Amino acid sequence: MRAAIFQAKYQIDVKEVPDPVIQKNTDAIVKVVMACVCGSDLWYYRGIAEHQQGPIGHEFIGIIEEVGSEVALFAKGDFVISPFAFSDNTCPHCRVGFHTACVNGSFFGMGENNDGGQAEFVRVPFADGTLVKAEGSDFSDDMLASFLTLSDVMSTGYHAAVSANVKKGGNAVIVGDGAVGLSAVLSAKLLGAEQIIIISRHETRQRLAREWGATHIVEERGEAGVKVVRAITAAVGADAVMECVGTKESNEMAFAMARPGAVVGRVGVPHEVVINPNVTFFYNVGMRGGPAPARAYIPNLLGEVIKGKINPGKVFDFVTDLDNVSEAYAAMDERRAIKSLIKVS
Amino acid sequence: MRAAIFQAKYQIDVKEVPDPVIQKNTDAIVKVVMACVCGSDLWYYRGIAEHQQGPIGHEFIGIIEEVGSEVALFAKGDFVISPFAFSDNTCPHCRVGFHTACVNGSFFGMGENNDGGQAEFVRVPFADGTLVKAEGSDFSDDMLASFLTLSDVMSTGYHAAVSANVKKGGNAVIVGDGAVGLSAVLSAKLLGAEQIIIISRHETRQRLAREWGATHIVEERGEAGVKVVRAITAAVGADAVMECVGTKESNEMAFAMARPGAVVGRVGVPHEVVINPNVTFFYNVGMRGGPAPARAYIPNLLGEVIKGKINPGKVFDFVTDLDNVSEAYAAMDERRAIKSLIKVS
Repeated sequence: MRAAIFQAKYQIDVKEVPDPVIQKNTDAIVKVVMACVCGSDLWYYRGIAEHQQGPIGHEFIGIIEEVGSEVALFAKGDFVISPFAFSDNTCPHCRVGFHTACVNGSFFGMGENNDGGQAEFVRVPFADGTLVKAEGSDFSDDMLASFLTLSDVMSTGYHAAVSANVKKGGNAVIVGDGAVGLSAVLSAKLLGAEQIIIISRHETRQRLAREWGATHIVEERGEAGVKVVRAITAAVGADAVMECVGTKESNEMAFAMARPGAVVGRVGVPHEVVINPNVTFFYNVGMRGGPAPARAYIPNLLGEVIKGKINPGKVFDFVTDLDNVSEAYAAMDERRAIKSLIKVS
Repeated sequence: MRAAIFQAKYQIDVKEVPDPVIQKNTDAIVKVVMACVCGSDLWYYRGIAEHQQGPIGHEFIGIIEEVGSEVALFAKGDFVISPFAFSDNTCPHCRVGFHTACVNGSFFGMGENNDGGQAEFVRVPFADGTLVKAEGSDFSDDMLASFLTLSDVMSTGYHAAVSANVKKGGNAVIVGDGAVGLSAVLSAKLLGAEQIIIISRHETRQRLAREWGATHIVEERGEAGVKVVRAITAAVGADAVMECVGTKESNEMAFAMARPGAVVGRVGVPHEVVINPNVTFFYNVGMRGGPAPARAYIPNLLGEVIKGKINPGKVFDFVTDLDNVSEAYAAMDERRAIKSLIKVS
């Protein structure tokens, strides 16, 4: 089969590699229909974070090709959505909805023996615990694109909103206007926030943010941005803050605008972040978040997509195929695209 | 009147000072019945934290002596419990239950014009927003001692438990066996935790912890303590952690034992604490907490005290009078007492 292979920074090649095979009775092989590129893949692409030479990608949807003898919930031909992490769905962490901490789990596209999602086929460990079936067939491309976002980006935006305790009728601030930040806007709207404020300087992203429910766009950053948010929230501060970037500056901004009692929901992987233990304490500002337990959120979010209540697939503004995966990375790297979709089969 | 006056480290004198008078129409004057010494007062006593030369103390209960013309909820003779901070109970922060962030509020015993609680009389600003009435009279000394804890220590322990999201049937770990840590044990029990684990090395404190619901005592600290907690929780980690000390070591321990998805409820004022932004992220460990909004909790906790469901006054194991306030500090400083009660009138 063909698969995207990370070679070195700025070099993702499509190579012919052996087809994956069932290794354990709980495995399934998925024929990938669509995959995409994550903001975190860009860290590897740019050489800022390390990645092993080998398969890459962790967001994919597809059709069951084969199942191991112990797979009970899926059969060949089922349409499935995969979270970016596999999990047994039975360990104590899975049972309370934190599948990304599964004691038997790991991430696709990372680690010695884990397949990447940007490929024609993927071996999925713990298929019963990992995959979610989309009942039906004959889905439109738009619908499939929305399914694909549940694999990571939309579930991550939703995790930001859940972690930040977004409440019906309250306000919510999203720091970051990348694909995750935009998904957080959609999630805040879904959870009933009335005032949705996004920090954004990019016109195309602002447009999608408004379409998805943002009521205020703040172009200022740092202290100036915090001031504007304070003005919008009548000097009270934000009821809920979603940190969707992960830099020192974006975190400082996020914590500074939280009102006393509010929680900063962090989903931006932290890079040289400093959390002030005293200021957060004296203002009773909390934090939660981390890698999104997408598996816990997919069933509910899938229902919302199928009902047509949310259309997170709109976050994709660049489409290519597996042979041109390198271009999918370049488009995001050069900010020509918010997020790149790869049609695989 | 007589009042405790902070002079310098290790020197708290009882002095004759002018009686407080109504300064604003929203003030009340309270004749103090009982006051006590806080762990945070000890920081001043020991010279580790700065305190202005002047009135000290912020925990007191008493009887309304006089009210300003705009005080609607109280009249002379009412028995009242005062939180350690005064608040208007109408600002946006008060309205969501974070009275310690009141835009018009401040703390007793701190600031230029704020009376201290260790005195015969206290001027209470925003009496209607600050005080809580205890209906009835002729309360036993034990009942009064329990009322007094609502002013700070019990409300602070409860804030730890609420912030840590202690759940019915779950486990809860309390780091710290001071008066606040013990109150956190009682709070975890009140919120329905089934397994209550306290880190403690002091026999008298262990005894009270067990009486209040602790199921496990862990004497080990640091990594060794974390290991023991992991063993008790079947390698899963703590569902809820309450940090009731505030040191670097106690915080490290608290964060290290939290299971993925858990929240560390912090009420120990942080001193040189470092919060790891990455480890907390990758394990989805959160934090909340800060100065307890005692005013928000007192009505409910008072009901539990009057029903006899909780008896937090047992935390006092040293009783003296105002003239001997210095001895109340010394007993705590020398660890002869968990917490000192001062009978004022």
